Amino acid sequence: MDNYQIDNLDKSILNALMENARAPYAELAKRFNVSAGTIHVRVEKMKQAGIMQGTRVTIDAKKLGYDVCCFIGVNLKHARDYPDTIAQLENFEEVVEAYYTTGNYSIFIKVMTRSIEHLQDVLINKIQTIEAIQSTETLISLQNPIAREVTP
Amino acid sequence: MDNYQIDNLDKSILNALMENARAPYAELAKRFNVSAGTIHVRVEKMKQAGIMQGTRVTIDAKKLGYDVCCFIGVNLKHARDYPDTIAQLENFEEVVEAYYTTGNYSIFIKVMTRSIEHLQDVLINKIQTIEAIQSTETLISLQNPIAREVTP
Amino acid sequence: MDNYQIDNLDKSILNALMENARAPYAELAKRFNVSAGTIHVRVEKMKQAGIMQGTRVTIDAKKLGYDVCCFIGVNLKHARDYPDTIAQLENFEEVVEAYYTTGNYSIFIKVMTRSIEHLQDVLINKIQTIEAIQSTETLISLQNPIAREVTP
Amino acid sequence: MDNYQIDNLDKSILNALMENARAPYAELAKRFNVSAGTIHVRVEKMKQAGIMQGTRVTIDAKKLGYDVCCFIGVNLKHARDYPDTIAQLENFEEVVEAYYTTGNYSIFIKVMTRSIEHLQDVLINKIQTIEAIQSTETLISLQNPIAREVTP
Amino acid sequence: MDNYQIDNLDKSILNALMENARAPYAELAKRFNVSAGTIHVRVEKMKQAGIMQGTRVTIDAKKLGYDVCCFIGVNLKHARDYPDTIAQLENFEEVVEAYYTTGNYSIFIKVMTRSIEHLQDVLINKIQTIEAIQSTETLISLQNPIAREVTP
Amino acid sequence: MDNYQIDNLDKSILNALMENARAPYAELAKRFNVSAGTIHVRVEKMKQAGIMQGTRVTIDAKKLGYDVCCFIGVNLKHARDYPDTIAQLENFEEVVEAYYTTGNYSIFIKVMTRSIEHLQDVLINKIQTIEAIQSTETLISLQNPIAREVTP
Amino acid sequence: MDNYQIDNLDKSILNALMENARAPYAELAKRFNVSAGTIHVRVEKMKQAGIMQGTRVTIDAKKLGYDVCCFIGVNLKHARDYPDTIAQLENFEEVVEAYYTTGNYSIFIKVMTRSIEHLQDVLINKIQTIEAIQSTETLISLQNPIAREVTP
Amino acid sequence: MDNYQIDNLDKSILNALMENARAPYAELAKRFNVSAGTIHVRVEKMKQAGIMQGTRVTIDAKKLGYDVCCFIGVNLKHARDYPDTIAQLENFEEVVEAYYTTGNYSIFIKVMTRSIEHLQDVLINKIQTIEAIQSTETLISLQNPIAREVTP
Repeated sequence: MDNYQIDNLDKSILNALMENARAPYAELAKRFNVSAGTIHVRVEKMKQAGIMQGTRVTIDAKKLGYDVCCFIGVNLKHARDYPDTIAQLENFEEVVEAYYTTGNYSIFIKVMTRSIEHLQDVLINKIQTIEAIQSTETLISLQNPIAREVTP
Repeated sequence: MDNYQIDNLDKSILNALMENARAPYAELAKRFNVSAGTIHVRVEKMKQAGIMQGTRVTIDAKKLGYDVCCFIGVNLKHARDYPDTIAQLENFEEVVEAYYTTGNYSIFIKVMTRSIEHLQDVLINKIQTIEAIQSTETLISLQNPIAREVTP
Repeated sequence: MDNYQIDNLDKSILNALMENARAPYAELAKRFNVSAGTIHVRVEKMKQAGIMQGTRVTIDAKKLGYDVCCFIGVNLKHARDYPDTIAQLENFEEVVEAYYTTGNYSIFIKVMTRSIEHLQDVLINKIQTIEAIQSTETLISLQNPIAREVTP
Repeated sequence: MDNYQIDNLDKSILNALMENARAPYAELAKRFNVSAGTIHVRVEKMKQAGIMQGTRVTIDAKKLGYDVCCFIGVNLKHARDYPDTIAQLENFEEVVEAYYTTGNYSIFIKVMTRSIEHLQDVLINKIQTIEAIQSTETLISLQNPIAREVTP
Repeated sequence: MDNYQIDNLDKSILNALMENARAPYAELAKRFNVSAGTIHVRVEKMKQAGIMQGTRVTIDAKKLGYDVCCFIGVNLKHARDYPDTIAQLENFEEVVEAYYTTGNYSIFIKVMTRSIEHLQDVLINKIQTIEAIQSTETLISLQNPIAREVTP
Repeated sequence: MDNYQIDNLDKSILNALMENARAPYAELAKRFNVSAGTIHVRVEKMKQAGIMQGTRVTIDAKKLGYDVCCFIGVNLKHARDYPDTIAQLENFEEVVEAYYTTGNYSIFIKVMTRSIEHLQDVLINKIQTIEAIQSTETLISLQNPIAREVTP
Repeated sequence: MDNYQIDNLDKSILNALMENARAPYAELAKRFNVSAGTIHVRVEKMKQAGIMQGTRVTIDAKKLGYDVCCFIGVNLKHARDYPDTIAQLENFEEVVEAYYTTGNYSIFIKVMTRSIEHLQDVLINKIQTIEAIQSTETLISLQNPIAREVTP
Repeated sequence: MDNYQIDNLDKSILNALMENARAPYAELAKRFNVSAGTIHVRVEKMKQAGIMQGTRVTIDAKKLGYDVCCFIGVNLKHARDYPDTIAQLENFEEVVEAYYTTGNYSIFIKVMTRSIEHLQDVLINKIQTIEAIQSTETLISLQNPIAREVTP
């Protein structure tokens, strides 16, 4: 794997683009006292190293009607059913994150739904119909006071 | 609050920009059979409604050296110390997400570190120095097979 | 759904009838300075909106011999057996409430029995004969210091 | 305490009034083949024995805007703070039931709120400000398929 | 059931015999200022009422070589296997007590063994060979500072 | 410590007296084909070795009105408060057994009460008034299908 | 079993060899004021008694690339599958210790891996493929501040 | 840090010395078809790289009278008391290993004692006298079927 070591200029560019991906390179060049070409070169290098993966608009899930955010610990009947269960969970668009962790849950997932009723529907009619699942435990997020990315 | 109801065109635009925030409006206009002005109008409306919050480059935390991702359940000595503890956790850049949930943890956080040693350092020298914290329980993520956004 | 918005007069009437469902409308009319017809109209509206569901005598379960009140957390062998298990629990008159919750129990029920022996009988000869149930955990209520309805 | 033993006629009357507290005695008399005076006498006896406590209209909490029903397990810092904590919980109208149980919670309460935000407010700004409370664990009810009274 | 209500004399006799079952009735008669015949009558009454079940020598299990005393929580695969499992546990002489409790164990037993090795043997070669048992959790008693009977 | 090794005759005598402590030595002598003097000598030896501690009448706690038998796991605020807490628990006659175990409870006790109300009283007004106790968890015994002594 | 009782000289020799197994006997003889022959005799006796089992070089697992040390609690589907499961775990060289304990895990193992990714591989592709395993819970060691042998 | 990469010859030498630290270099040289000098050089390199730390006799703790091996999960009153508590635990020779882990215990230790009574003494009179410790949970090892080192 190509472990490109980023320097301070890279970090500055990255920070700027993590805040606003549409920032014109000319403006960044001016701000960091380099040429626009340098910005372009650095961005390309970070893309090729896989550090920058793309750009995307950020959305407010609540404004889109997703009122309920929760974490669900999933316990399987057999530990070895893990890969199959992930494949099935991937079919449910409400499952936005899945983790295989060291804790006492077989799988740990993050689920976004439009309401408590929607969550009930996702649990009963989607997640719990998976044959391999023995039980689930749901933690509903009541507040999300910190939400940010790692600092480069 | 202005609950702008998005229609199918909005969803298409949103989906396209959630994949690539730098996609030229002209291209989107062509793809969706509308004028570039319409794209512009819709994007502005979704911005004003707070649905679109901005654009940002997406990064690969592992490529930046963040090898360890974990969830930490935090138990407080007194439930009422919650707001103060959040304020202190916010000072530690490794704490990238924090949730106030219905489960048996007072606070549930997501932490990114460069290594097991770095995690140990964050736990002993940062998080556990907070006076209000009684204990912590750490779930290290070994795999993250699903990671996506809600669908508009 | 017809979301009838109740006003202060409705709330006053509701509060009065939640305390004594047989209160004559004439008396309520006098107390709230409106005509008996108005009381009648408001009650009908709240009935049609589904807010008022009926009237019932309230009983003291202990006086009827129900000495033991408990909550039972039920764990199923398979999460998907939830609907069937509810159907079977409904056959046991001692099961007076059932909840599908976010916690670590598959089903959470409230059971009223005449004695510890009766509870043992209900557990062994009724609830635990259900094929889908793996285990149960019983919390016996020793005291019930707060028991009231929501305020309209 | 006056342990009035109810007979079958009492049970029939009780069942009828538990369904509709405003049922005219004349109608009950006709249905059960006794005089209206007998109905009256029996009802009075059951009232005096404390079996019948009153009549009340039954309401649909969801129609009144109470969308979220949950159970909260409360852990105290000291077991002996139980009576004081109950007294404080009684001040919060959202706390509709409280139990002192044999389980691993110091107190077990039922809370009704209008929304997830309201629940967050009740937890952070009401319940968790009580000095004696160490932690809480919330089980949100997603469905309530059984809800009835004991059979006389 | 014959609920013989014991009086103070009965209690005194019972207390005396609970300490020393071979105490001569003549001595008890003298101590309590009644005739030996009265003692005899009372003892017979308490036997017939089932209050006194017999007499037995009390032994020191440690002196007999039983060094390890433990409680074992037993979890079954199916709650309904409870009666069969008790029947099988009864065959193992090391299982001296068994309880069906409200807690999170299916069965709760007390086991006496001669050593840690003996306990290991009882667990692996006796208790855990029972088909219906899913898992066990063992609490070894390190000290038993209170051991007495109820006071009559 | 005098580790007297009991032989088969000792075991037979012990078994006989563990069933009926008042069995005449002459009868035992006849049954086991030895002289009454031998029985006497053996019993004395087992008493001196501390194997036999005395004789006592066995009672049926339920017949004496003790309807509720439970185990209570006690958690202390500080592990080092263990000896003091035992001393205080010893003052409550309802606490008939106490164990210091390897499990997750600081102390594990057995409590006998006359009723659910009596248990509530013992918990709130006796056990939980002990300053050092943080919390308790109660397992009520619903059935006690095995209750015997170790076999010599 | 030959319970050779070691004396102070034995302890001194043992301590010396537990620190440095290659220490010349002549040196030890001089240090402890005995003949080299005595050292030889004592070492042979301790070997024959099974107290000394051999000598081995001690290695630094981290220096060999084993960065991750963890404990894994293994829960089986059936308690009786314990012996078979141990046999299978023995085939995985990363499993360096296994215990059968009194706690709530069926088996408790210590695992050494080269990285988080290696641990994930061992869990998913080795340990969790064992048919009898229901679930695992992993505790990663972040620091190992005490690591020594018992004192003779 | 000097990350010396060991080759196959190093591994062979290491394996041989991990089995028998007193194996003559001449013998190893013959076995691996190299000169004794090469063996010497490699051993020195592995020592300098810190891979080989020394040699030690291995002992059988049971033969030395250490009959009870257990793991103890320690919960602290305040997470930040971790370093001080380790320092105090180090004073107790029975504590042979200590880990700071990701699980729900503040500290996880391994303790070797001569008997159950010795364990009780270590818990009550040593470990639990540490002011910062809130509670402990002990897992006694009944069997240790796998005990080996990592393979180089």
